[in-house]
Amino acid sequence: MNYSMIFYIIGWILNVEAALMIPSVIVAILYGEASGMAIVASLFICLLLGLPLVRKQPQNKILYARDGAVTVALSWIIMSLTGALPFVFSGAIPNIIDAIFETVSGFTTTGASILSSVEVLPNCILFWRSFTHWIGGMGVLVFLLCLLPMTGGGYHMNLMKAESPGPSVNKLVPKVQSTAKILYGLYIALSVLEFVLLLAGKMPVFDALCTTFGTAGTGGFGIKNSSIGGYSLYIQGIVTLFMILFGINFNVYFLLYMKKPREAFRCEEARWYLGIIAVSTLVIAVFIRGYYPSFGLALHHSAFQVGSIITTTGFATADFDLWPSVPKTILVLLMFCGACAGSTGGGIKVSRIVLLARTVKREFSLNIHPNMVKKINFEGRPVDHETIRSVTVFLATYVLIFAGSVFLITFDNLDLITNFTSVAATLNNIGPGLSLVGPTQNFSLFSDFSKIVLIFDMLAGRLELYPLLLLFVRDTWKRF
Amino acid sequence: MNYSMIFYIIGWILNVEAALMIPSVIVAILYGEASGMAIVASLFICLLLGLPLVRKQPQNKILYARDGAVTVALSWIIMSLTGALPFVFSGAIPNIIDAIFETVSGFTTTGASILSSVEVLPNCILFWRSFTHWIGGMGVLVFLLCLLPMTGGGYHMNLMKAESPGPSVNKLVPKVQSTAKILYGLYIALSVLEFVLLLAGKMPVFDALCTTFGTAGTGGFGIKNSSIGGYSLYIQGIVTLFMILFGINFNVYFLLYMKKPREAFRCEEARWYLGIIAVSTLVIAVFIRGYYPSFGLALHHSAFQVGSIITTTGFATADFDLWPSVPKTILVLLMFCGACAGSTGGGIKVSRIVLLARTVKREFSLNIHPNMVKKINFEGRPVDHETIRSVTVFLATYVLIFAGSVFLITFDNLDLITNFTSVAATLNNIGPGLSLVGPTQNFSLFSDFSKIVLIFDMLAGRLELYPLLLLFVRDTWKRF
Repeated sequence: MNYSMIFYIIGWILNVEAALMIPSVIVAILYGEASGMAIVASLFICLLLGLPLVRKQPQNKILYARDGAVTVALSWIIMSLTGALPFVFSGAIPNIIDAIFETVSGFTTTGASILSSVEVLPNCILFWRSFTHWIGGMGVLVFLLCLLPMTGGGYHMNLMKAESPGPSVNKLVPKVQSTAKILYGLYIALSVLEFVLLLAGKMPVFDALCTTFGTAGTGGFGIKNSSIGGYSLYIQGIVTLFMILFGINFNVYFLLYMKKPREAFRCEEARWYLGIIAVSTLVIAVFIRGYYPSFGLALHHSAFQVGSIITTTGFATADFDLWPSVPKTILVLLMFCGACAGSTGGGIKVSRIVLLARTVKREFSLNIHPNMVKKINFEGRPVDHETIRSVTVFLATYVLIFAGSVFLITFDNLDLITNFTSVAATLNNIGPGLSLVGPTQNFSLFSDFSKIVLIFDMLAGRLELYPLLLLFVRDTWKRF
Repeated sequence: MNYSMIFYIIGWILNVEAALMIPSVIVAILYGEASGMAIVASLFICLLLGLPLVRKQPQNKILYARDGAVTVALSWIIMSLTGALPFVFSGAIPNIIDAIFETVSGFTTTGASILSSVEVLPNCILFWRSFTHWIGGMGVLVFLLCLLPMTGGGYHMNLMKAESPGPSVNKLVPKVQSTAKILYGLYIALSVLEFVLLLAGKMPVFDALCTTFGTAGTGGFGIKNSSIGGYSLYIQGIVTLFMILFGINFNVYFLLYMKKPREAFRCEEARWYLGIIAVSTLVIAVFIRGYYPSFGLALHHSAFQVGSIITTTGFATADFDLWPSVPKTILVLLMFCGACAGSTGGGIKVSRIVLLARTVKREFSLNIHPNMVKKINFEGRPVDHETIRSVTVFLATYVLIFAGSVFLITFDNLDLITNFTSVAATLNNIGPGLSLVGPTQNFSLFSDFSKIVLIFDMLAGRLELYPLLLLFVRDTWKRF
């Protein structure tokens, strides 16, 4: 294990985090909030830990797959621990476990909160809370790859692989650093566009910024107790649109940017994703039409909630826990489906579901002709055996973690739906579940032990299971 | 496709089914019940359909994997349709869909019922209902293999493979027919032993017979509205013991029969299975001790319910829907776990769960050392790649069928727990679920459409997904 390189990168992560706290300090100054001092203190602690670690560059810069996974997992844990300091120091969330829960929920773009009222928080803390979504959405290591002129480029793919969602990572261009820059460029461009369109709807600047962060990262922290429910239909519509846009594979935007619209529209995963959204929205609208004065309005709220859940954002305009059984079941199924690979969304991912369905279909053929050789195609190309294997094993890992988590949190003695949807909402990085963790509720009712289990689930979900789990395997720490 | 051989076998299935109706007719005669005529009529219909099909032996007796799967799936469907006739003709269950549901539930050893009161039924009908469990437990095609002197032996393995539960089928002895005979021999011996021990507990002969059928097949149809709750603690204890025994891989009994106790006790799957039962029983007993006068009694009921659910029998001595959240969650998790492969129990099977867990563990190693070659071991032998692949794809198929079924039955607008546990209870061949399909409830509240979905799930669960699903794939019916 290349420890010196791992610590070097973690040092940079801490320094970058310190830099990313500056906007929140500015917000504190603008609003004249004393809580700003809590953020300044946290900022200095990050630097105090980070600067010594980056004093000298390690000679061996090579990160193998194992080092890459460990680096990413440790970075995310340390980033979450230090990111929780502003909440603790400002007194906004005095309990340390709660503060870590909230921060992990932010960085992993889950959006599950332990706060019963967010409107009482100072603006600078609200800003930091929402900003963690934006940072976590595209990934902080990908961000670091944009900034650091690191040599030994080929091996940095291992960092990106460990942090990026989806069954396989495409480098858009041959160099990892250029790929990272393009991804962040597209991410910033889309975010700015949403921000401008929200301002056009007369949303206050602060609200528009925080809402953009929550949408872009598909996070879902609101700055109002009613989430997005109190804003105009226009604003809700813009948020719906952008949630769905941020859930699309960023390859599509890259192809559009490269002026290859035909290739972009041929993206199979995006088409499945949009198809699922369209059908679910329509079916749900039919079943909730009685709850709204017009079918158009039912369609509006249905689209918002479908977009919010499938992209794993978790914003709400309606308390869908009060809806009938059919819409609720569809939403629960969408919780697991998730958005596209290579987007900022969580969940199992549409591409994995499609690959799983095709693998099952091929199994039929194998049952009929045991000696047949048949390739599975996706995105117009045959999928290699290794990807199929990793997708099926991903599902197995996912199911085992899911069952294990439900078992562990059940000792709090809450009802089955609460337990089941809490794990679904955290492992898929969504935010709200049903029953006691429904859209108008929060996660404060869990014991500290269960919160730690759910923190683990959020991190495991964001890093797609393996990097985090590797930390708990003895082999990882062996010398060779 | 070898249609003439398939029809020939189906013909024999119908004739065997007619023969298996005779005991119920005898019961009708003993109790002087007019409903016996309904069974006699059904018997003749079976013969009327079956005898013409077996008039001449087909020349080509070879059944390839595809033919084997289709034969088994069609046999089970036809057997269920004709098996439902006694219920319809006697007026016990006038609705044809309900009657088919009850029969499929019987043959697949599910034990889910649409009847709100079973005590009003005539004894001969109750006997037939319970006897279907015993027939379905070991499998009717395996039974046929014992009887029919079929040549082309090697290919009959395809029939057994399609009907027997578990990731891989071991022939106990080189000849398929001998294996089938040994399995039925052990099955009958264990059943007789339970019957005698129940009689020793002063259980009436009729009750002891029906209860033995329900236990041996891990079915769970009771002949009392209170299931096994009204019998003595001794009888409940015997049923607990035998449910657990019938959930053990029959290889173990074969090894004991061959006087190889050391090999028998080394069976890894059985040890995991018994370990899970011991731990679950203990934990649940701790959480329900307040519901019973003594801890011993809590342990008694905990063991009964754990044995009943993990073996997918579905008998009940207590309404576990009223228990606290921890026991309920454990029971729901056990619903998916299921019993051992090669037993009469359903579910995913302990061996599959162990193999999945080891596959996940190996994936960690692969993440650390991408080029490593590491074999997974089970039962002291390395597991071949093909078995691992089929287990992970099984899980994928299972998850997709599960999600699809929940989606389809949700249109009845019942609550989420009812929908979720209904599918769990039928796909895993258990019987009762929670909430509206809890131990004291029944499945009559579903629409006909949902009942058909659940009938499909029961058959898919019993035949381990593929044979039944193959019927719906166009490739299956293509000529080559």
